[in-house]
Amino acid sequence: MITERNRASFDTKGLAEHLNGGREKLKRLGELADLLHQQDWGNKSQRYYLNRQDTYEGALKAALGIWDLIRKKVITMEDAMEARKLVDFPGGLELHIGMFIPTLLSQASPDQQAEWLPKALGLKLIGTYAQTELGHGTFVRGLQTTATYDPQSQEFVIHTPTLAATKWWPGGLGKTSTHVVAMARLFIKGKDYGPHSFVVPIRDMATHLPLPGIKVGDIGPKFGYNGVDNGFLSFNHVRVARENMLMRFSKVTEDGKYVPPPPSNQKASYATMVYVRATIVEGAGWALARSVTIAVRYAAVRRQTAAHAGELEVQVLDYQNTAADLLPLLAASYALIFMGKAGMAMYTEFEQDRDRGNFEKLPELHAVLSGMKAVSTTIASDGMEAARRACGGHGYSLLSGLPTTFTHYVQNVTWEGDNNVMLLQTARYLVKQLLAARAGKASGVGSADYTNNAEAELRQRCAVASSRDWLDPALQSAAFRHRSARLCVAVTDLLASASGGKVAFEGPAWNSNTVDLIRLARAHCYFVLHSTFADSVQRLSDEGTLPAPTIAALSKLVSLFALSTISREAGDLLEDGYMSGQQVEWARRQYYGVLRALRPDAVGLADAFGLSDYLLNSALGRADGDVYRALLAAAQASPLNTTEEGPAWDGVLKPLLKPRARL
Amino acid sequence: MITERNRASFDTKGLAEHLNGGREKLKRLGELADLLHQQDWGNKSQRYYLNRQDTYEGALKAALGIWDLIRKKVITMEDAMEARKLVDFPGGLELHIGMFIPTLLSQASPDQQAEWLPKALGLKLIGTYAQTELGHGTFVRGLQTTATYDPQSQEFVIHTPTLAATKWWPGGLGKTSTHVVAMARLFIKGKDYGPHSFVVPIRDMATHLPLPGIKVGDIGPKFGYNGVDNGFLSFNHVRVARENMLMRFSKVTEDGKYVPPPPSNQKASYATMVYVRATIVEGAGWALARSVTIAVRYAAVRRQTAAHAGELEVQVLDYQNTAADLLPLLAASYALIFMGKAGMAMYTEFEQDRDRGNFEKLPELHAVLSGMKAVSTTIASDGMEAARRACGGHGYSLLSGLPTTFTHYVQNVTWEGDNNVMLLQTARYLVKQLLAARAGKASGVGSADYTNNAEAELRQRCAVASSRDWLDPALQSAAFRHRSARLCVAVTDLLASASGGKVAFEGPAWNSNTVDLIRLARAHCYFVLHSTFADSVQRLSDEGTLPAPTIAALSKLVSLFALSTISREAGDLLEDGYMSGQQVEWARRQYYGVLRALRPDAVGLADAFGLSDYLLNSALGRADGDVYRALLAAAQASPLNTTEEGPAWDGVLKPLLKPRARL
Repeated sequence: MITERNRASFDTKGLAEHLNGGREKLKRLGELADLLHQQDWGNKSQRYYLNRQDTYEGALKAALGIWDLIRKKVITMEDAMEARKLVDFPGGLELHIGMFIPTLLSQASPDQQAEWLPKALGLKLIGTYAQTELGHGTFVRGLQTTATYDPQSQEFVIHTPTLAATKWWPGGLGKTSTHVVAMARLFIKGKDYGPHSFVVPIRDMATHLPLPGIKVGDIGPKFGYNGVDNGFLSFNHVRVARENMLMRFSKVTEDGKYVPPPPSNQKASYATMVYVRATIVEGAGWALARSVTIAVRYAAVRRQTAAHAGELEVQVLDYQNTAADLLPLLAASYALIFMGKAGMAMYTEFEQDRDRGNFEKLPELHAVLSGMKAVSTTIASDGMEAARRACGGHGYSLLSGLPTTFTHYVQNVTWEGDNNVMLLQTARYLVKQLLAARAGKASGVGSADYTNNAEAELRQRCAVASSRDWLDPALQSAAFRHRSARLCVAVTDLLASASGGKVAFEGPAWNSNTVDLIRLARAHCYFVLHSTFADSVQRLSDEGTLPAPTIAALSKLVSLFALSTISREAGDLLEDGYMSGQQVEWARRQYYGVLRALRPDAVGLADAFGLSDYLLNSALGRADGDVYRALLAAAQASPLNTTEEGPAWDGVLKPLLKPRARL
Repeated sequence: MITERNRASFDTKGLAEHLNGGREKLKRLGELADLLHQQDWGNKSQRYYLNRQDTYEGALKAALGIWDLIRKKVITMEDAMEARKLVDFPGGLELHIGMFIPTLLSQASPDQQAEWLPKALGLKLIGTYAQTELGHGTFVRGLQTTATYDPQSQEFVIHTPTLAATKWWPGGLGKTSTHVVAMARLFIKGKDYGPHSFVVPIRDMATHLPLPGIKVGDIGPKFGYNGVDNGFLSFNHVRVARENMLMRFSKVTEDGKYVPPPPSNQKASYATMVYVRATIVEGAGWALARSVTIAVRYAAVRRQTAAHAGELEVQVLDYQNTAADLLPLLAASYALIFMGKAGMAMYTEFEQDRDRGNFEKLPELHAVLSGMKAVSTTIASDGMEAARRACGGHGYSLLSGLPTTFTHYVQNVTWEGDNNVMLLQTARYLVKQLLAARAGKASGVGSADYTNNAEAELRQRCAVASSRDWLDPALQSAAFRHRSARLCVAVTDLLASASGGKVAFEGPAWNSNTVDLIRLARAHCYFVLHSTFADSVQRLSDEGTLPAPTIAALSKLVSLFALSTISREAGDLLEDGYMSGQQVEWARRQYYGVLRALRPDAVGLADAFGLSDYLLNSALGRADGDVYRALLAAAQASPLNTTEEGPAWDGVLKPLLKPRARL
């Protein structure tokens, strides 16, 4: 491992500091890891052996442990955010912290905040956010839970009219939360005002038993994330006071008059989504980085096959196919982290514009980050599983850290907007931009500006004239841009012809072309992802933020991201003649060349994520490379090994084998 | 669901009978499911809630329960094979049945069989097969465990010389097995004779404690398959009698003379591998069928988004992208099942040839099934996860059956030959065939016959002249064949130029071209998979085995398999000009057309696998479609719901929330 580290062409520690927000921040992460490791609830040595109940309890204790460290002023609130990630033990308080409190902050009136916020912040009540229903997810307007206003008692009657309307999924709902913010359709005098938010107490504060009319419980074990008690909830005509509807924006008066929200509300909620999705994109990069760190380190330690018995076997990282499995994932991790940081910067920029009343950039930002949420979480999920498989048998062991990292993460392709739905939002935006441009209206800004002259773009041809040319980020970017423009024109024409000229954004014609629409959105996101990565590295170079060898290594990653993608998806660029067979062949040869060039930097680029052994909790991914000793030690600690004869000896095996003389 | 079933254009029951080996066989499967469901150990209602120890014990009880039903003559041995699949609870006896007994049968001398077989068959001892080591897997010659012959005592001394030589992975080794067949390098008088097999007792038959010199235990929790106690094992100079070396083929005499195996031995072991891999290929089809059945049924039940609130939402199967996610997986399942059946028929044919001393077909059969093992298990694993994701949030719940089906299965990409290694075997064979053909020697038989005139094949062009032409299996097959031939020539030329003309099949030049080699092998396997599927359907039609509407539906699946692949991987066929952009566009339009045409048959084609609710054990995949009621019922039975207040109330939450008046 030391040999591998010495091969790196750049200062890995410097890059780790940059990615993690500076030298002090990285140092603090190390101190926090040491501190957490010493806490009962932060010690991860038993983590992979816990059953469901212990996982649930352990996760709660970890969250409360962090809370306690803040209270005792051992750590700051900012530390606590990092500590949650380092302890990596999501539990019953996730949505209290992540949704219940933020919803009160954004949607409750000042009076309501005065009532509930201190209790929520002091953990005197625990809340969650109940929107999704058993049979209704994505389509919020299709939710069936009702909140009917009774002007007599000035109460809302919250009710679950059908089995499929049972609330389903909210984290912490099962056994932890005492309150929920429930999304329900507001009815006043028989009229449906659509989904609104209501604070509903669901458990008795003295006994923690469900209140009358409430049926609540845990939805059962899941692929991962089992520390969280995702729950179900149904209401049987449960009454709450009028004041329990969150009334910062829309209101219901005592006599049952509905006051609609101001129109700017919609934009504010889009802005929140933009913020959340930028976080998800960077998070995708870090999640993938974690699996890739483990896999790259193990591929440097692991050896497989020698020409002759007795010879030292070959490091698996020296097989081209292993390098091709892992190094593009390394590049993707970097691309996503830089994309997330850029997305956050764009959000900050937008906030400044917004404060000047300028919402101009919001639609583009929202549209791109919707699709980017989908693309980033898919790249991360698929990449994590690919990294796991690249570790052979040991990747199948929980002790490698790889299976649980994946199973915890992969829900990201579904929650916060199903990935297909997200991509269709991006596609809708792009098609609209193209239609506007064709109608002669001012159109595409930012990444979608190709819609302004898409027809001209169709006539462009790839300018690469040698294998070396493919190392030019501008020529790489041109290819991604061309693909996106071509697919945009193609699917827009399809939609128009499917509905007699006028494009409809829902209904049968739309639903019958979603494959091509998703293909367009994905292509657009790859275009943005690549160009943002290339631009970020260029800026770091121009500003002298990082030394030249580091920039050189990052530039190779930009090329690797581009060329591995173009090689794999060459058909998209060959189909209309943009690229020739020779140009694809050059791209592939250059791709293999970059793999070779990056081989000495592989472990260094993994190290540069700066992920601690504490975070990784992986026998395979240890920084010191002493994997086999670690695997054996961890295995011996497994509960099945508590006794030498094992749990089935007395009850099952002994009666069968009937003790007799040794064979 | 009834509506969906009525839409099917063919007799689903008839197809189910055909796929499952006939009407009687399918009926018997149903009876077995009913029988098993009634057994304590066969009841699956608690399966998703078990912790590791209970899973281990439960799986052992299930295996012994089946054993007992055979003993009591309630079921036959043939029934038992099916019962193991239906109970679907792999445990500590898997390798006793699957490897220990078969190894005794194939490698033990008659005297050794007389000694050990009756005890093994009567479960008076439990064995496993210990080959893989902690740091050594694929490269058998690199194993480090030694067996040194001591002519004085006429014993072998079995020893683990390094930590990395610890035996690792054998199923049932951890806490169940009393004996192992250990692979160890045979040393006689200082000379290394390579890996040989030894029967070694590891546990005391009276106490089940490890014998002196033995360190053994469970390797800890895994992604899936946790009913199996995969184990570790190290030997500290453990002595076994000379008679414990399996001596049917190679022998060591009392005075320490080594008698090598007869040369035909190698061929016999290849034949065994062929048999095992044909089983894996068909198994991959059935494994995928299981997830696809669940996902297709749920996609027919699940509705998402209406144009207006209050309207019935759209069945998700009616979105083109959902159909494109699921129907090609349906096609792949069928392709793999037919491929497995064909592989088995080829094996049977080979057995007849072999009995006449003819081994001619073995190399091709072995080469194709190596790569096919890799391609089939990858298609199945990726497809299972894709099917899971297509189910949205509910696919993340263990109650859907989808996560555990995947985690149990996915180890198939690694065991019985790592997939990359398997594909490289296929590539090696193809390159050798091409080199032989170029040298003017008789070459490629069967699927590799294109190597005989590969250069001519390079000049071929796709003959498709309309979108409709793409429905012709011969034109589909020609495309797959062309791709394979072209990639074979290209990589062979690369290898030759990398090593100055003479192609080496190991070493740096080989290791640096494994990406293209794997690409070739994969392309070849897709060619074989498609043509075998098409030919199988054609034969069923010619022989009148299935009625015309069923043949029509299966033919659409053949086209779907071909066109979804060609659309996705068009670059491979555009790059050298074999196909034009127009032809790709036709392929894509026809692909979408077949998706539409198959939509009414979707549920019927899933039903036609004939998988019982008992096997599926899925709230989402129930034949009756009553998924939401089933999900809620299963959730309520989850152990976290044993008490209303939950397991963390007393110890964790109560002290925090400090009972007080209701808010």
